[in-house]
Amino acid sequence: MDGPQGKDVGSDGNGGGSEHDVVARAFVEYYYHTFDTDRAALAALYGSTSMLSFEGHRVAGAEEIGTKLAQLPFEQCRHSVVTVDCQPTPSFPAGILVFVSGNLRLAGEEHQLRFSQMFQLVPNEHGSFFVQNDIFRLNYG
Amino acid sequence: MDGPQGKDVGSDGNGGGSEHDVVARAFVEYYYHTFDTDRAALAALYGSTSMLSFEGHRVAGAEEIGTKLAQLPFEQCRHSVVTVDCQPTPSFPAGILVFVSGNLRLAGEEHQLRFSQMFQLVPNEHGSFFVQNDIFRLNYG
Repeated sequence: MDGPQGKDVGSDGNGGGSEHDVVARAFVEYYYHTFDTDRAALAALYGSTSMLSFEGHRVAGAEEIGTKLAQLPFEQCRHSVVTVDCQPTPSFPAGILVFVSGNLRLAGEEHQLRFSQMFQLVPNEHGSFFVQNDIFRLNYG
Repeated sequence: MDGPQGKDVGSDGNGGGSEHDVVARAFVEYYYHTFDTDRAALAALYGSTSMLSFEGHRVAGAEEIGTKLAQLPFEQCRHSVVTVDCQPTPSFPAGILVFVSGNLRLAGEEHQLRFSQMFQLVPNEHGSFFVQNDIFRLNYG
């Protein structure tokens, strides 16, 4: 996959390195690789309180989000991440906001589409993170 | 200003209407109008814990954020908002995530630039909201 490696990672110029930078970049790499190779597996990243806004359509809960992602009107696609920015949130539990911009190429389509997407990652009881918030938009010209 | 009125507001199709939708849309209208007409006034929207990532450069705290916004290398600009999505966060204190896409025209420039921006609004002790998190990116072709 095209990950954020070697690209502008939206840090303060030193390539990041704080704990939330590391979590955010690992998440972004895993998320888009999984989206492009095994989309059904994405549902496991969400929880019962999760929310997805996909091109303005809102769904909630891991099961409905998994169904929505599975039913998107394209079979195969390939994401290329261009920028990754992240910030911690000082709320409780402390989350990580991840903001991604990139390009999306659908199978059989010559042109790429630009997209932006944001996530809030929140720790679960097992010490890892789940996607509490997910907002996706294509950036039309 | 060009606000989100009458455009795709990223709701579930009924034009929004929940409390956080109303807050988010009022914030977006105020924020970009103020950015385009009185940029120095934006600093008042941030607090001591606020974070801004602007094209990958991070600053923190209302004062530094105000300075950063004032020193952006263009004098005048005009934002046109195209989409506004929002989601509540279930953390404490409960915030509102706001995700905006649109176009930005700099004074003297013919072409518009596409941008995406996300905010987290968090309630303050006066019952209104301040910008805890702000991430801005231009979407280059």
